[in-house]
Amino acid sequence: MVGDTLGTKLISLGYKVRMGSRSASNEKALEWAQKNGDLASNGTFADAAAFGEIIFNCTSGQVSLEALQLAERENLQGKILVDVANPLDFSKGMPPSLTVCNTDSLGEVIQRQFTDVKVVKTFNTMNCQLMTNPGALKDPGNVFICGNDAGAKTEVESLIRSFGWEKIIDLGDISAARGMEQILPVWVRLMSQLGTPMFNFSIVQ
Amino acid sequence: MVGDTLGTKLISLGYKVRMGSRSASNEKALEWAQKNGDLASNGTFADAAAFGEIIFNCTSGQVSLEALQLAERENLQGKILVDVANPLDFSKGMPPSLTVCNTDSLGEVIQRQFTDVKVVKTFNTMNCQLMTNPGALKDPGNVFICGNDAGAKTEVESLIRSFGWEKIIDLGDISAARGMEQILPVWVRLMSQLGTPMFNFSIVQ
Repeated sequence: MVGDTLGTKLISLGYKVRMGSRSASNEKALEWAQKNGDLASNGTFADAAAFGEIIFNCTSGQVSLEALQLAERENLQGKILVDVANPLDFSKGMPPSLTVCNTDSLGEVIQRQFTDVKVVKTFNTMNCQLMTNPGALKDPGNVFICGNDAGAKTEVESLIRSFGWEKIIDLGDISAARGMEQILPVWVRLMSQLGTPMFNFSIVQ
Repeated sequence: MVGDTLGTKLISLGYKVRMGSRSASNEKALEWAQKNGDLASNGTFADAAAFGEIIFNCTSGQVSLEALQLAERENLQGKILVDVANPLDFSKGMPPSLTVCNTDSLGEVIQRQFTDVKVVKTFNTMNCQLMTNPGALKDPGNVFICGNDAGAKTEVESLIRSFGWEKIIDLGDISAARGMEQILPVWVRLMSQLGTPMFNFSIVQ
């Protein structure tokens, strides 16, 4: 769902997008590509990684590493990887726990395993409908971003602004992914108490 | 510092406050009591717990259980315990880690160990200067609250409102303390990036 929504948004902005899946014949990816015209295509994770200049990790956090391994290291090398995933474990029901937290994070794990990739963590603290449509909220709140490569963050920030976002907070290096991912438990609780996923965190000063 | 600030605020609202410490001759507590007039007094943790109708846990999260054991079970029995502590571990330097997180929380640990106490977690997601002075920010943002006892939460909410807070979000039972405490890593990072502890989370919809 996150990949579908982000991919569709990127196409609306004129980018070519290739949706990766385990299989090039993934039905949902085929359907998405057919629906989104000439700029859209689909393929394996490796096809998508080889095609893209910027890669979005929109997989479930528990399988992100596997998906990135299937994408193949040489296809990712030197590229920006926008990591919007959360390491949520729903296997024991609600509320979900995190598969990695406290002194580590999914963002850091990915950066350690793919040292040649410029991992930029962002957008993981909100619903994908809001990611691509900040105007849905009167005050859309903040987007957090972190990563080790300043140039990569600047490029991703520019992409985020083109989605309509204005208030972006750079939290520093990729270790800030710990805090960004650990927001999820309160996000899940807020969704349940507010009865909607259409809300966001706004930092007030 | 948190106890000093909250105690001083409560006295300004006309409450009698007894500050508890390991020792009744704790110099900072004595100084605080002398400075704050007739409504202020100090004593051991047990003295303070026996004195109070509502108990505030303003200790460092790592020693909260020890302080509550020194406060003695019979002095706490049936009372509201407002837990504003965070289980932050600074022993390995910055950034701090959490001594308990993910599938448990300090709020829950306290509630399990003191089953006769009505634990209400709140205020842990902000600086104490903001807790007692929401007017310091143009938009003060939200206070989160959780706990198992609805009546206790209503009473604490009323106290929070008397501090000037308007936007209080009840996150449900005490297990929501997981999310509330796991906000701290991003809070610490925000403090560092914004250069001030005077900020807050506002939930925008």
